[in-house]
Amino acid sequence: MAVFEVRTASRCQMLDITRQVRQALAESGLRDGAVLVYVPHTTAGVTINENADPSVAADILAQLERMVPRGAGYRHGEGNSDAHIKATLTGFSQLVPVREGSLALGTWQGVFFCEFDGPRTRRVMVSFLPAAQREEA
Amino acid sequence: MAVFEVRTASRCQMLDITRQVRQALAESGLRDGAVLVYVPHTTAGVTINENADPSVAADILAQLERMVPRGAGYRHGEGNSDAHIKATLTGFSQLVPVREGSLALGTWQGVFFCEFDGPRTRRVMVSFLPAAQREEA
Amino acid sequence: MAVFEVRTASRCQMLDITRQVRQALAESGLRDGAVLVYVPHTTAGVTINENADPSVAADILAQLERMVPRGAGYRHGEGNSDAHIKATLTGFSQLVPVREGSLALGTWQGVFFCEFDGPRTRRVMVSFLPAAQREEA
Repeated sequence: MAVFEVRTASRCQMLDITRQVRQALAESGLRDGAVLVYVPHTTAGVTINENADPSVAADILAQLERMVPRGAGYRHGEGNSDAHIKATLTGFSQLVPVREGSLALGTWQGVFFCEFDGPRTRRVMVSFLPAAQREEA
Repeated sequence: MAVFEVRTASRCQMLDITRQVRQALAESGLRDGAVLVYVPHTTAGVTINENADPSVAADILAQLERMVPRGAGYRHGEGNSDAHIKATLTGFSQLVPVREGSLALGTWQGVFFCEFDGPRTRRVMVSFLPAAQREEA
Repeated sequence: MAVFEVRTASRCQMLDITRQVRQALAESGLRDGAVLVYVPHTTAGVTINENADPSVAADILAQLERMVPRGAGYRHGEGNSDAHIKATLTGFSQLVPVREGSLALGTWQGVFFCEFDGPRTRRVMVSFLPAAQREEA
């Protein structure tokens, strides 16, 4: 398993971590299988989406805020219930297939760390799962 | 890894791909572990849900549209921000356990390709992850 | 693969199953890789979130209900379309990395079974995926 840190700069932010995941994969030596990108937090998540036009990430964050407003009368006393809920919606992990040592991302896909209660220093774990060996006939 | 194409017929559509996933699994020879169903797009996702009554898929699509309306004043200039957001909500991959060579889906579960910006020809990747071998005592 | 049952007590409930997942992992003997926690249902899901303050789970359930109201005029005749939709939003599986035989959960993370159409007796499947062995130079 590889672990790296990210530093977020605002309360809600989508941070492209594709480069760090790619580097961890290269160092792992995995040829075929899948990479598990995991966020060990409860107010941050991880998703995949377009990393060409930054407006896409801005639209995702803005719509999540409309769906889960920060001040909507939650019980949890820390004032960050919206962050917990947004993280459950994006999810805490993404799996990306690996083929011949490379991430099999689509042309427009990138992996994004999703900060919902920053700015903070956060951790990302990357695990390497091998594909099944084909049985010989 | 196996790859197959699907052709969607409308802008938003849930397409049952359980048969294709099952066939890819049979050809892989995997006996125990998990199948990773991955969508390499940014305006389409994949989910699991009931495939007996087609009303369930229709209800999912309609409610996603209510939560993430197509014309809600997004920044991204291509007019498909809702599709990017819906895909992040469903997710880009599903893992299904495999037991004795079969998908361990529940009785009512099917795997659905989720088109949010069609109609298009799309790709689905299927990877095969073996279960751990139990250590001998 | 391990399978265990849970008994839910109300229509919507988040049930902490971290202990059961940890026990299944210990019995599996897996040292490094990932645990797949899978729910073979279509009106229940699984998520990760804070398990210290029970208000967090209550806030998640309440906000999901606001986003996907039970009686919002769905087509599916069984009156539980909201449950199907909520399950697609949380997801039907979670992957947790495993390091040296332990779940690599963050300090505040727990694994929650998400009941959206209870009370019922439900099943949870746990699969064990080994990490890649590092190639020798």
